[in-house]
Formats: sequence, structure tokens, C-alpha cells
Amino acid sequence: MKKLIVLGADGYLGYPVSVNFSSLGWEVHAVDNLSKRFIEAKLDVQPAISIPPFKKRFEAWNESDKNLTKNKITPHIIDIAENSRQLYNLIEEVRPDAIIHFAEQPSAPYSMKGRSEAISTQTNNVKGTLNLIFAVHKFVPDCHILKLGTMGEYGTPNIDIEEGWLDIEHKGRKDKVIFPKKPSSFYHLSKVHDSHNLEFACRVWDLKVTDLNQGIVYGAYTPFTKEEELSTSFHYDSVFGTVINRFISQAIIGHPLTVYGGGEQIRAYLHIDDVIQCISLALKNPPNKGEFKVRNQFTEFKSVKDLALLVQRSLNPKGYNVEIDFIDNPRIEEPRHYFNPINDSFKKIGLNPKMIDEELILNISNYLKPYSDNIDKRVLIPQIKWNINK
Amino acid sequence: MKKLIVLGADGYLGYPVSVNFSSLGWEVHAVDNLSKRFIEAKLDVQPAISIPPFKKRFEAWNESDKNLTKNKITPHIIDIAENSRQLYNLIEEVRPDAIIHFAEQPSAPYSMKGRSEAISTQTNNVKGTLNLIFAVHKFVPDCHILKLGTMGEYGTPNIDIEEGWLDIEHKGRKDKVIFPKKPSSFYHLSKVHDSHNLEFACRVWDLKVTDLNQGIVYGAYTPFTKEEELSTSFHYDSVFGTVINRFISQAIIGHPLTVYGGGEQIRAYLHIDDVIQCISLALKNPPNKGEFKVRNQFTEFKSVKDLALLVQRSLNPKGYNVEIDFIDNPRIEEPRHYFNPINDSFKKIGLNPKMIDEELILNISNYLKPYSDNIDKRVLIPQIKWNINK
Repeated sequence: MKKLIVLGADGYLGYPVSVNFSSLGWEVHAVDNLSKRFIEAKLDVQPAISIPPFKKRFEAWNESDKNLTKNKITPHIIDIAENSRQLYNLIEEVRPDAIIHFAEQPSAPYSMKGRSEAISTQTNNVKGTLNLIFAVHKFVPDCHILKLGTMGEYGTPNIDIEEGWLDIEHKGRKDKVIFPKKPSSFYHLSKVHDSHNLEFACRVWDLKVTDLNQGIVYGAYTPFTKEEELSTSFHYDSVFGTVINRFISQAIIGHPLTVYGGGEQIRAYLHIDDVIQCISLALKNPPNKGEFKVRNQFTEFKSVKDLALLVQRSLNPKGYNVEIDFIDNPRIEEPRHYFNPINDSFKKIGLNPKMIDEELILNISNYLKPYSDNIDKRVLIPQIKWNINK
Repeated sequence: MKKLIVLGADGYLGYPVSVNFSSLGWEVHAVDNLSKRFIEAKLDVQPAISIPPFKKRFEAWNESDKNLTKNKITPHIIDIAENSRQLYNLIEEVRPDAIIHFAEQPSAPYSMKGRSEAISTQTNNVKGTLNLIFAVHKFVPDCHILKLGTMGEYGTPNIDIEEGWLDIEHKGRKDKVIFPKKPSSFYHLSKVHDSHNLEFACRVWDLKVTDLNQGIVYGAYTPFTKEEELSTSFHYDSVFGTVINRFISQAIIGHPLTVYGGGEQIRAYLHIDDVIQCISLALKNPPNKGEFKVRNQFTEFKSVKDLALLVQRSLNPKGYNVEIDFIDNPRIEEPRHYFNPINDSFKKIGLNPKMIDEELILNISNYLKPYSDNIDKRVLIPQIKWNINK
């Protein structure tokens, strides 16, 4: 039985991914430090669907009717940034074939709240990844590390966004270089730091790393996590909620969709099912020893305004009255820009994407509707502005 | 009187730079957390010329005959990475016109000693720089930050090394991007992380930053710090000693020069006097608001083998018997590579470089000769190897 460690297994993606690979026959070890729950508490926000404590969530899966294989996931509460010894012990004992690394503070707005949040985001993310690099190098140098990065690392360059590397010619000479990045928050920067550290580890220690530069994920459930006791942590708030999920949540409670600025900023997206599909494909197509393989993990891209219009178009015929508010952009980002990211590497290995459309938006809305009372209007409007002074 | 804060003022460069700008009429505040003394103690190494405690060094300068202006430097023991409040208070009180930031763990080998040293290097350097960014943004947004980076951030690309930015054309479209970097240690990586964080701060908060990507510094004294009680911390050991300083130290005690590998790796260099000259020029030519200005701060480049041969050629006619040992390279780096770094930005604003030659090497040797007994043979051979497993 192949062994998998999922770091950050309490998160929006970590839980469904853990459950999915367990049901595909992997021995899964689920690790989290629960820090996101702590941050949620400090910010007075909660997921729309309340989730059980960490170990209980995995017990629920282990005993669920949905768990056809009866494989048991083992949960571990470990802080990989602060307790390297526990991480070393786990990796030495389990000797995983692959590690999927989601264990990072995932919110750009949170990282921009002030000095303390910027520092905790960067130190948590960078230290966790460094500890992982050292542990894998020591115990399982052939293990495939799949690290979740973000398309936001690239910023919005005026050239096509290639997959992590760029062939360039300069003054008649050629080289293949790391794609230059211009990230737009201390969170996005932390991922750029991680990518540089991981590339170095591949280069000097022959590690095998796939850096997945992921678009903005949307969707409320996967086939294995549709039931309430197995639900993932669906955020709709302005700190942790991703844009499509936030728009749908706003729509179902009759709150205007909050488009930041003119909404002409273009972003890349993928459905949560395609996160799992992409990770499966990446696992089946590992890098060579010493290779730092970067894959842009998204299925489509469009402007935020077009997204809002799509949500409106999907739901208004169904009795909703969706309005759109263009509010002051709390972020500092290019209002209009070229954007052409490439995702050939997943297409080549068989990605069959789910594209966002009216039906998908309606499905998510219908799934969320019973939890409308949990959607707190006070946390929909961004309170954190990029132009902070703390 | 213009005000200057020097962060890392206890170091090889920080002390002479502080003294220099004080004597040029600046009100200088000298800051250090003394962590390098702690690391030296743990590694059982010392500078060749023993230096007084931190505050005493500055008292010595303040009362020295060399201090013609009688300006007093104020020393402050502050850990800018761990005590942001003290840094904030200092910047709020002093309201500096410029800050020169040397306050980083400066040794590549130390950062490669093991997990703990890699993490402490990156967290110390990244946190200190983030705290600085936030403090400047809050209290003195027009202050000019001069941050010491290193030419080692670039690695050895197969194209010319431009100054921080690169004009590229890709598939018929153009952009100006951050020069892609391939650093060769966790220390060098920490500086790349800093550069990304600083570029972001310029972009979103209109800070004024000069990132000085510095070559390998050599030399034992500056005009103001030639006397023993004012000497800088001259390291010759394999952890903190830079290559030319180490070669000269080896030569004067009759130890073979330790060239790593074939010695065909090419590096960029500058004399410690030119560090001061470059920083003076950079101070006089500040960036605009919001500009992340990068200057490659070196005066010449050559292979390590050519350096060793130059030291041999300089000293053998003077009665030394300098031998050269080609030892296993403890680092992982390209043994042979293209290397053409650009330093036009300093040339344009008046750099008048001191080039390394036989006379300069003889001068440094003569200066060090009285301290030969302080040079400990046990710390000349590298014990830290890049291929660690800890």
C-alpha cells in the first residue's frame, strides 16, 4: 500500500484530498496544527458549514458508509513549522511515497492585516517548508513532494505566464530561468520564498518536487464529502473566502456581490474536484530526481466582473435577485492588465476540466442554501486594506 | 544634521561604515543584536584582530584622535528581528533620513550547517527586514533604505547579470521583470526573499529602497579604522572569512591557500574602501518614491584560482612561500560557468574603483602580519559541506 502524508489536512482542500486518496487505496496520514481554527477565532469568522474537531472529522470518514474501502486515515496534530522533531519522527516512521503540502497560512488579506500577521504568515510558511525539505532529504529522499503554490505568485506580467520556468534569450545568449515573479501580498510572497527554497533543494539534494501554482478554488463539496458530517471548511468571508464561493454566499442571502474595484482584474480558477484531479495526475507523473517541476493548476480564467455577472445570470432566473456592488478595492493590484497563463502541462497528462457555468453555480447555491443562516453579513465586506500602517 | 541608522553596526562592514558617515557629518545611530558574536562563540572562531565589546568600540571611536568632527555615534543593542517594538521606537525617535541595513546572518556556510542554522538564518534575515519595512512605512516613508544583498543571489546564469531587473521579450510581448535568481545556499536564498519583500513594499507603499547586490568584500581596514582599537572584525576562518581575506591569512602563516574544487568558479569582488564609496554614491543618488533600485556593487570579477595565483605572485617575491591546495569543494556550485555581471549603475554615478593587485595584497598582509599568532589553523579548512543530512 502506497503511503501519503497530507500536511494541512484540516483545510478547505486538505480534508477532501485526504479522504479522496484514502478511498483510492493510499495509506493516508493527515497532519495539521489547527492554526487556521485559531485565526478564524481571532477574526470572529467560521465556515458556513460547521465542521467537527480535527480527529473527529477523520473518525467520521473512517466510519462513514461513503468509505467503501474501509481504509482508515490516521490524523496527527503536529505543527510542522514549530515542531520539527515531531515532523521528523512521523516521516521516519511512515516513510511516505508522497507528501502533499497544504500546511500554510492561506489568506492574502490576513497576511496584510499588519506587521504581526505578515511575519507570522511568512515564518510559518517558510519554516514549515524548510523543515519538510530537511526531513525528506534525511529520511525519504525519493519521496515526491507536492507543494501547493498559487497563480498569485506570478502577479500580472505583460507576457504569457509559463509554468515556473522561462526560456529566455538576452543579448544573444540563452538560459532557462525561474519565471520572474511579482506577488501581490505577504502571503503570496511567502509562497515565492518557498518555491525558491524548494528549487534549491532539488538542485543540490536531488529532491523530487512538484510545485503546483494553483488558481482560485471554488466549490463546496467533492463526491466523498457531500454529507454534512464530512463537509469541508467552506469559507465565504472576506479573509478566507475565495471569490466565487463568496459571491454565491452573498447571492443566496440577498447581499450584493462585492466586486473589488472595476472588476477587470483577471484571475485563474478551478473547481475543488479538479484540485483532486490535478493532484492525482501530478502524483502519477512525478518529476525526476533533482527536478523542480512546476505546473500551473487551473482550468480557466476570467475577470472578476464576468464572474459576478455569471453568478447573477445563473441565479436570477431561479428566483434570486442578485445585485452587484463595485466597492473600493482593498487590495493594491493592477486594475487592467494582460493575463495569459499556460496550463499545458496538465492538459498533456489528461486534465479533463470542469468549467464554471450556470448549472454548477446553481448546484453550489442549492447545496449551501440550508446553511444561509450561518452566513454572517458582517464579515462579507473587506476590513483589511493593503494600504495599512501598523 | 542628516540622520543615519546603521543596522548590523558590529559587523565587518557595519562598524567602518558607521564611523565613516559620522566623520562625514551624519548623526549616526549604530544598531546590532550581537548575534554574530554568539555564533562565533558557538563555532569556536574569532576575528584575527580582537575587537572590544560593542558599546566600547563606539566609545573608542567617539574619543579617538581620528574623530576630527567630534561627532558622537550612539550605539543601541536591539534585535530588529525579535524586538520590533524597540526598532519602532528608535525609528520614531530618530526619524532617520537613511537606513543602511547590514543586520543579517552573513555566512553561507553557517546557513548550510544544518536545519536549525538554515531556519535561523532565514527567519532572522526575513523577519528583521519585514520589521524594518513596517517601521519605515509607519514613521518615515520617505527614508531611503539601503539594503545589503549579494551578487550570490543571482547564481551563475548563462546570460549577463543585469542590475536587479531584466527587460525581456517573450512570444512577441515585452516586460521589465525582476532578474531571475538561482542562489546557492539558504543564506543567499534569505537575501532573495528579502529582495522580493522589499520590491513589494516599494510597489504598494511607495518606499524608497536601494538593494545593493554586493560582491565579495576584502581588505582589513579603512582610513578611519586602521588603528588597533578601531579595527573591524576581520575573519579568515572558513565560515565567516571571505576568500581573499582567507587566502592572505593562510599565506602569512605558511598554510597552503585552500582553493575549493578546480577554482574556475568566477566571483565578483570589491575592496572595503569601495563598499564605503559605493554606499556614499548610492546615498547621494537615492531612488524615487516607490522605486526599487538595484545596484550591483562590485569592482571586478575573476576566478578563485586566479585570485590564489595573484596572492602567490604578490607575496612570494617578499620572502613568503605560498602554496596552493585544490581541495574538495564543500559547496555545490557550477565548476565552470559563464559570468558577466554588469555594474554600470555605479560607474555612471562616479565609481572610482580600487582594483586588486600585488601592492594591495602586500599592504593587507603587512597589516595582518603582527596578528599571525591569532590565526587558528584549525578553522581554515571547511567543515561544513553543502551535502549535509541533518
